[in-house]
Amino acid sequence: MKVGIVMGSKSDYPVVERTEKMLDKFGVEYVTRVISAHRTPHAAEAFASGAEENGIEVIIAAAGKAAHLGGVLAAFTPVPVIGLPVKSSTLDGLDSLLSIVQMPKGIPVATVAIDGAENAGILAVQILSVKYPELRQAMREYKQEMAEGVMEADREIGGR
Amino acid sequence: MKVGIVMGSKSDYPVVERTEKMLDKFGVEYVTRVISAHRTPHAAEAFASGAEENGIEVIIAAAGKAAHLGGVLAAFTPVPVIGLPVKSSTLDGLDSLLSIVQMPKGIPVATVAIDGAENAGILAVQILSVKYPELRQAMREYKQEMAEGVMEADREIGGR
Amino acid sequence: MKVGIVMGSKSDYPVVERTEKMLDKFGVEYVTRVISAHRTPHAAEAFASGAEENGIEVIIAAAGKAAHLGGVLAAFTPVPVIGLPVKSSTLDGLDSLLSIVQMPKGIPVATVAIDGAENAGILAVQILSVKYPELRQAMREYKQEMAEGVMEADREIGGR
Amino acid sequence: MKVGIVMGSKSDYPVVERTEKMLDKFGVEYVTRVISAHRTPHAAEAFASGAEENGIEVIIAAAGKAAHLGGVLAAFTPVPVIGLPVKSSTLDGLDSLLSIVQMPKGIPVATVAIDGAENAGILAVQILSVKYPELRQAMREYKQEMAEGVMEADREIGGR
Amino acid sequence: MKVGIVMGSKSDYPVVERTEKMLDKFGVEYVTRVISAHRTPHAAEAFASGAEENGIEVIIAAAGKAAHLGGVLAAFTPVPVIGLPVKSSTLDGLDSLLSIVQMPKGIPVATVAIDGAENAGILAVQILSVKYPELRQAMREYKQEMAEGVMEADREIGGR
Amino acid sequence: MKVGIVMGSKSDYPVVERTEKMLDKFGVEYVTRVISAHRTPHAAEAFASGAEENGIEVIIAAAGKAAHLGGVLAAFTPVPVIGLPVKSSTLDGLDSLLSIVQMPKGIPVATVAIDGAENAGILAVQILSVKYPELRQAMREYKQEMAEGVMEADREIGGR
Amino acid sequence: MKVGIVMGSKSDYPVVERTEKMLDKFGVEYVTRVISAHRTPHAAEAFASGAEENGIEVIIAAAGKAAHLGGVLAAFTPVPVIGLPVKSSTLDGLDSLLSIVQMPKGIPVATVAIDGAENAGILAVQILSVKYPELRQAMREYKQEMAEGVMEADREIGGR
Amino acid sequence: MKVGIVMGSKSDYPVVERTEKMLDKFGVEYVTRVISAHRTPHAAEAFASGAEENGIEVIIAAAGKAAHLGGVLAAFTPVPVIGLPVKSSTLDGLDSLLSIVQMPKGIPVATVAIDGAENAGILAVQILSVKYPELRQAMREYKQEMAEGVMEADREIGGR
Repeated sequence: MKVGIVMGSKSDYPVVERTEKMLDKFGVEYVTRVISAHRTPHAAEAFASGAEENGIEVIIAAAGKAAHLGGVLAAFTPVPVIGLPVKSSTLDGLDSLLSIVQMPKGIPVATVAIDGAENAGILAVQILSVKYPELRQAMREYKQEMAEGVMEADREIGGR
Repeated sequence: MKVGIVMGSKSDYPVVERTEKMLDKFGVEYVTRVISAHRTPHAAEAFASGAEENGIEVIIAAAGKAAHLGGVLAAFTPVPVIGLPVKSSTLDGLDSLLSIVQMPKGIPVATVAIDGAENAGILAVQILSVKYPELRQAMREYKQEMAEGVMEADREIGGR
Repeated sequence: MKVGIVMGSKSDYPVVERTEKMLDKFGVEYVTRVISAHRTPHAAEAFASGAEENGIEVIIAAAGKAAHLGGVLAAFTPVPVIGLPVKSSTLDGLDSLLSIVQMPKGIPVATVAIDGAENAGILAVQILSVKYPELRQAMREYKQEMAEGVMEADREIGGR
Repeated sequence: MKVGIVMGSKSDYPVVERTEKMLDKFGVEYVTRVISAHRTPHAAEAFASGAEENGIEVIIAAAGKAAHLGGVLAAFTPVPVIGLPVKSSTLDGLDSLLSIVQMPKGIPVATVAIDGAENAGILAVQILSVKYPELRQAMREYKQEMAEGVMEADREIGGR
Repeated sequence: MKVGIVMGSKSDYPVVERTEKMLDKFGVEYVTRVISAHRTPHAAEAFASGAEENGIEVIIAAAGKAAHLGGVLAAFTPVPVIGLPVKSSTLDGLDSLLSIVQMPKGIPVATVAIDGAENAGILAVQILSVKYPELRQAMREYKQEMAEGVMEADREIGGR
Repeated sequence: MKVGIVMGSKSDYPVVERTEKMLDKFGVEYVTRVISAHRTPHAAEAFASGAEENGIEVIIAAAGKAAHLGGVLAAFTPVPVIGLPVKSSTLDGLDSLLSIVQMPKGIPVATVAIDGAENAGILAVQILSVKYPELRQAMREYKQEMAEGVMEADREIGGR
Repeated sequence: MKVGIVMGSKSDYPVVERTEKMLDKFGVEYVTRVISAHRTPHAAEAFASGAEENGIEVIIAAAGKAAHLGGVLAAFTPVPVIGLPVKSSTLDGLDSLLSIVQMPKGIPVATVAIDGAENAGILAVQILSVKYPELRQAMREYKQEMAEGVMEADREIGGR
Repeated sequence: MKVGIVMGSKSDYPVVERTEKMLDKFGVEYVTRVISAHRTPHAAEAFASGAEENGIEVIIAAAGKAAHLGGVLAAFTPVPVIGLPVKSSTLDGLDSLLSIVQMPKGIPVATVAIDGAENAGILAVQILSVKYPELRQAMREYKQEMAEGVMEADREIGGR
């Protein structure tokens, strides 16, 4: 099982890095690429068209502003594409979000929250877990771990 | 393979019906439910908690306004949840969209466009296709069919 | 008389602390909890379902982003729920606000301003004062105190 | 127990009427008034200042556009004020919502959804139920009734 | 000729101070007050009702968030009221702007830009200049002075 | 005393007509013009530059979309300019509003609500009333008339 | 001289038709195509890559929702691309606008107003007129014609 | 070939400077001016009216807030005008963007992203390249250079 992480610009890496860490946590292999829908469109096509035969089962596309990357990749592959809107210096991420989530009929991009890098990783794992039972089990454990984190905070704050 | 479609209110059905038709097209079985995160929270928990053992591999949650349904279902299951924001009578769907897509760290909901009912279905098929190769093939054919539709329109309009 | 304060994440505490201080000022007892609608849904249900018998007469739910906490608690209790939208790192609190205030028919959440922590506390006191006359009197005095603060500032600035 | 319903303009009555019906359902007495914060400010002050001694325990203020009514009433009374934003012909209710919910520190208005007339009534009942146990019981039954409505729809849609 | 400057909170003074400086520049007398529409509503009424007989010919009302001050003052006086929306810590001033500008039929508030303190002062002078020819002349000179400032910058930048 | 009403397009006339009626009510003379800041810029300059000597004491500029008319007229005259944002077929008037109200430092436009045609007229009268005491008295009476209208509605609705 | 008009969906044609009429008016040749960035990405690449050698000197890309068409075409050609955002059934065109105008550094799309079909055509003519003096002259005449239209309306309305 | 760069205020220069650098890169001559649509309207008219005979073939207008500069220049010239919205201290650039892009029918302004200074320059080069083949070739090379930059980043990040 392998995830393809693509970002539209090197400057998205601090966000994307958190996605990588989440996949590491689940032991999911990934390949990380910098590919621009607009500046390297042939690379985008090549990556998406070849994703399937390269063993990539889910794609995560992180981009900001008029964020076309997820839609462009999804155009070239039947593999599910997760869109991760990255907040840029204006409009607080609203442009990235709308450019990714409002995909017209026929070509969905599974969108997570603005700068929701961890959730992009978790969603990838959930999708893979449809096929790989071990990830399903790991996801259950992760949910338990999160619950314990909250309960720990509850004890700490509640005890004040 | 089975998809669980849940809508928060009966009034969402005209939108959800288009999701059903898309799943029909791909021959994907589904169960459609009306469950409110707020008015029947126990049903929501029961549905989500039991999804896995009931053979549901992807959940689609359609809701409007402060649309908590997707997040509430996702809280109770490791199965991937697709969120379909439904436009209501005020704010043009923006409230539904933000309530669904902006999920905090840990519990993603894979969001599609406002009223993007067909895309919710297509995304479910793409997710299932990670496991079921026949759906992958069907998705490729669907993409081809869409392309032909556009090319047909191109000939028609271009010929004016 | 007792207020239940619930926050969705430990990171909301700096906001919630101002609510606590306001309740302290009115001598209203409270219990503060960290409960996530998504990561500890069973705790949310348990807290809300048991609120009444635990003597909690008003609930304050503070959360950010797709802030489902208030709605989820309100689903399980007839006790009035105040929603306090917390601003997060994107969208300037608009997502939190809309996720809380736009509750569909049947399950209201009494929403205050984004990061309006003191107002959440004051509203809780006003609600309790329907039953407890001493709080009504204290609220009148608080209004007088606020008026004096403004008049003091008026003298100070007006005198320049 | 009595609720004071105030609308800023006669044109808000079709919305407010749904609030009245909800209060009727719970057998809660109410007085309905048309009072403008801007055109009849003395009436607003008189109403709010006298609310308490007139036996009004909760106020519902419905208004559109730059909706100051709730805040203006809340300025003159310690009684809790519920704000009901009414959608007008421009901006889809966003102006009404922000004018009501974003109250500055000290004077909260308990805001419900845009055009959320039923919820304004339900919230008033929930607030009153802090004092009147019979309303608490009625609210539990109403929640049960709503749940049954959803389950009925679930059987109907699910059976297709 | 006298302008009444009112701010809803002492914290608005850094913005309002720029309005004062603009009025100083034109030699227009002003009185500056801190009056809250919500915390000192009687002072608001007293100020507005007495404005005319106190020789105040234009009122400037500066406020943030759900900024009702301008509308509340305008309710009590036929004197023109200028609304100055102040940006607060959330929503980037949009709430202040809409709360002030979207006044319903009958009671206008002459709104300037968010944090547009100088423009509030200039607009006051323009309104007064309808009556006082010396201000009309001063305004012409100020326009000339502004033009020279731009031309100076043009020479400086253009010369690079 | 004379008001200059300018609209950017003939299609704005149904809105502007309500401004005319308000001025008629107060017996204020006006001249109505169709002048486009972009299509007849010389006419805009001529109108604004000559306003003062033509006896125009207040200008009302009505325009939609990227509504530059008010700012362009204000550039050429020290006479106060009221901006009336007209809602067009997209964005619900937000573009018109922001294009008018957010004027940069130096050149204010006194903005009223989107489609707030009557308020544009009332504000013009209030500005003129700084100079003309008879309008001040008429404005007082108009406020009384509005109050009576609200009280009439109050009796009607309250009596149900 | 030739313009390439591309729309993302046949449903955009009623808008695009107004662009065609504007080009007709200026006697500018055009080719109209239906090409989807997502459903026929190879056609998009082929069209854009071949534009120059096919004599297309300006491209107009009309699309709605997450409107990637303009950006995708611009990725494959140095020819200037005009983006025409088309309003769809939700969000009033804001999604289309932001998806088109907020292009990241390196690949601009020259954006016109939402549904601004005529302006897309006029802008194309203005761009072509950099090269073709006869279009420059025609544009001057069109401006004169527009001015006359406004003046005609001015006489008509002004004469009431 | 010459570009006219105009900014509405000296404070826009840090943004505009990036446009200048882009034009320098392509060896395109430019003249940079500070001209305010509102404070120096005659200069704006003079600049735009004389642009053509001064050899200016494309105009870039940078402005913030209620950014009328692009529209005002476009009113006086048939030369294509590029609008560069500059983010100011409130509303995150949305006001600038809408004031520029939403131009009414007849007078387009070719709008680029908020603070998209480089893209304003690139678009100017693309427009000029309709006439000047050497710029077309340079643009192809620039696209290649950008592609190489992305590929370099891809190798760097991908190699981690």
